[in-house]
Amino acid sequence: MSQPRPTDPLGEIYAEWTVEFEANPEMSLQLMRWVFEDWQRATSEPEGVTYASTSVGGVPGILVTPLDADPAQMMVVMHGGGFALGSSASHRKLAGHLAKACGAHAFVVDFRLAPEFPFPAQIEDGLAVYDALLAGGIAPADVSFVGDSAGGNLAIAMVLTLRRDGKPLPGGVLTMSPWLNMENTGATIETNDATDFLITREGLAGNISRYLSGGASPTDPYVNPLYAEYDGFPRLYVCAADTESLFEDSERLVELATKADVDVTFSVGHGMQHVFPFQAGRLARADDEIAAMAAWYRAGR
Amino acid sequence: MSQPRPTDPLGEIYAEWTVEFEANPEMSLQLMRWVFEDWQRATSEPEGVTYASTSVGGVPGILVTPLDADPAQMMVVMHGGGFALGSSASHRKLAGHLAKACGAHAFVVDFRLAPEFPFPAQIEDGLAVYDALLAGGIAPADVSFVGDSAGGNLAIAMVLTLRRDGKPLPGGVLTMSPWLNMENTGATIETNDATDFLITREGLAGNISRYLSGGASPTDPYVNPLYAEYDGFPRLYVCAADTESLFEDSERLVELATKADVDVTFSVGHGMQHVFPFQAGRLARADDEIAAMAAWYRAGR
Repeated sequence: MSQPRPTDPLGEIYAEWTVEFEANPEMSLQLMRWVFEDWQRATSEPEGVTYASTSVGGVPGILVTPLDADPAQMMVVMHGGGFALGSSASHRKLAGHLAKACGAHAFVVDFRLAPEFPFPAQIEDGLAVYDALLAGGIAPADVSFVGDSAGGNLAIAMVLTLRRDGKPLPGGVLTMSPWLNMENTGATIETNDATDFLITREGLAGNISRYLSGGASPTDPYVNPLYAEYDGFPRLYVCAADTESLFEDSERLVELATKADVDVTFSVGHGMQHVFPFQAGRLARADDEIAAMAAWYRAGR
Repeated sequence: MSQPRPTDPLGEIYAEWTVEFEANPEMSLQLMRWVFEDWQRATSEPEGVTYASTSVGGVPGILVTPLDADPAQMMVVMHGGGFALGSSASHRKLAGHLAKACGAHAFVVDFRLAPEFPFPAQIEDGLAVYDALLAGGIAPADVSFVGDSAGGNLAIAMVLTLRRDGKPLPGGVLTMSPWLNMENTGATIETNDATDFLITREGLAGNISRYLSGGASPTDPYVNPLYAEYDGFPRLYVCAADTESLFEDSERLVELATKADVDVTFSVGHGMQHVFPFQAGRLARADDEIAAMAAWYRAGR
């Protein structure tokens, strides 16, 4: 049986990464970080968007300002990359497409990375941004938490932390291909192995060990939101590909949120890759997903 | 005698690359390309600039549009990276800072890379962009060619090619740390070795072999502009660091252009790294250089 070949730009990019990962099994974390910066290549430049390298609440990142967006509407974007890779640079254009479609501003957070800074440094940084936005006069309901892959985990864990601490919650949470199962037991890691050109159980294990290097448990609900309760959770958007290794994480999240009566929307990208909206401006299905996320966002205003 | 340590962001970045190059002497060209994309990290986001992923004359790239810039003023930006590395993504922010300061638009050209496409594919692509701009109604005098490192070589070779073919020349040429000596005989490669954290003669040799893999001679003036005549050359701006390995290339270029009565401006960055304007928004000396280039540009309008 022949292996499927990539049929979209992101699949081609992941396949190129995989060649190098397999040829360099002992690749340094630094080199791996430079490889993951290549995520940016999947996305076209969103037109009519300006940027600033700045910090919010003492946390660095890129402020994304679509021309004519409402400055009172803010998205806090937690990038993917297994808590250890990725940056505001890899996700700038994805955030630009999304913020522009939503008519909002976005701040792509350069939270501290693992393993230099294990859990919960990333969550603390995201919440420091949120606190600063509220202190600046933005209403909690006008803030959305956005995250892809490990960033989806962080966006959810940030809400769980706020709820635990009795603080005001953001208006909504938007996740793309969230990575939640820190026990590394997802069934779709095997069943979708042939169609997912990036994710392997070994790669996930490396990032789990980096994220939990401070000693946290893989079943702590703030580490693994599949162990969390979702009562009172804000409206939630989840998109994922039915052909990706982490699809089960999204299915289980949607099931948990639905049981807790959360207003949850689940969008499935058939035959797509991990975080397929990265292909905004380059693939119709990605543009459709950006539009669907924006429609969901605007319906909650 | 202890080695100097990096004292600026670009030196730190180059030193980080060098660690990986030395640890991976057989690094694949693909991995090297991802490392060089990290150039973007040296530069802050220029504020008030928008971008489009597009093509001009059939050549892909990023169109850089500062808010309120004059659409009739165009910079054709040929990126550095030894003809084989670098991209519109690595140079987008540098182009944004420069175009904004000049009040011009810029197109950062994703010319075909060597060795897949040896000399003169890169020059052909740059000139295809120029031809399309003129066909679109932009006056030759309103176009500037901009290039750093190997892109500086290309920017000059593009003018030499136009002159040879009896075509209208651009209004000016702006080069940053141009790399011209394809015989790889520069003295400053040795004398500045301890203070240049990126360039080595071995690294240059690899890129020369990629660029000339089609069989061109390293003393062909279109390959090695140190062998060119500069009569009738447009006004020329050259900046380079007196502490960088390729400083001699700039010194010799300025000498040749001066002898040919070209209107040439030479700006020396004392103690700086290769293509030090990359640090725009992050280092005062880089901001000063952007301002100096813009003053030179505006004086020629």
